[in-house]
Amino acid sequence: MRLRFLWPGKTRNRELKSLQDFYAERIRALADVEIIETREARGLPENQAGKIKDLEAVGLEKHLEDAYIICLLDRGTEMTSQELARFIGTVERNSAKPLAFVVGGFLGLADRVVGRADLRVSLSRMTFSHELSRIMLLEQIYRALTIHRGRHYAK
Amino acid sequence: MRLRFLWPGKTRNRELKSLQDFYAERIRALADVEIIETREARGLPENQAGKIKDLEAVGLEKHLEDAYIICLLDRGTEMTSQELARFIGTVERNSAKPLAFVVGGFLGLADRVVGRADLRVSLSRMTFSHELSRIMLLEQIYRALTIHRGRHYAK
Repeated sequence: MRLRFLWPGKTRNRELKSLQDFYAERIRALADVEIIETREARGLPENQAGKIKDLEAVGLEKHLEDAYIICLLDRGTEMTSQELARFIGTVERNSAKPLAFVVGGFLGLADRVVGRADLRVSLSRMTFSHELSRIMLLEQIYRALTIHRGRHYAK
Repeated sequence: MRLRFLWPGKTRNRELKSLQDFYAERIRALADVEIIETREARGLPENQAGKIKDLEAVGLEKHLEDAYIICLLDRGTEMTSQELARFIGTVERNSAKPLAFVVGGFLGLADRVVGRADLRVSLSRMTFSHELSRIMLLEQIYRALTIHRGRHYAK
């Protein structure tokens, strides 16, 4: 399985970056994985949200062409961990494409990126910081891979 | 507002512990907060789940008597961050009790603890590790307090 994680900008919080590396390493033992931190719009005031999201869309779009695209959104489909694991298994069996998980930056994803999603998923009805969301996603994907392989993983 | 966070055992993952301290400090600037790591059942095999959860219930119950009790469960009510913030505000205005948030250990909460909950909340339909759930909860409560106070907080 090929997995690609895309988000604008580096994970700045030191602990979250360390957790990101921790999960990426564990996922790497079970699948091909790339984490691509795309170009981030910097130095623009927050009231230029449209422009910021458009600039960040350019960076994300470079890595979507060949992929099955899963966008993380507040208002996406909610799944249980088991449902997510089954879903990933189904895509893996029926597609040669890599799975690209796309997480928005501080202000979220541009509509033109969301519009390309093959699946829109929500981790929660609650809104988490975009850096914490990255870790929650990685943890779920690691969990999904261990569910597939029947491995024991912490509840 | 008085907030109490209860869970069995220390947060062992170093990065999650550091994030726990980070959010606790920020919450402390806005409310009275205690984090109480109660007695953890150790040295018992996982197939004695009932016994483990019962032992951990004893530790948790010592801190529930006087409180409005919110248990975190996979199958609790899902709320948005705004709904959670409003809910906490309502309890604060209408009750002198501290709010006690209870997160289960590795195997979850005993039924006798869940039975005492004034509210059962779910952070997500997905299952996260119990240590990561602690951080997600603290992040949401910090977010809720900043929503109340009209402060700016990262999306």
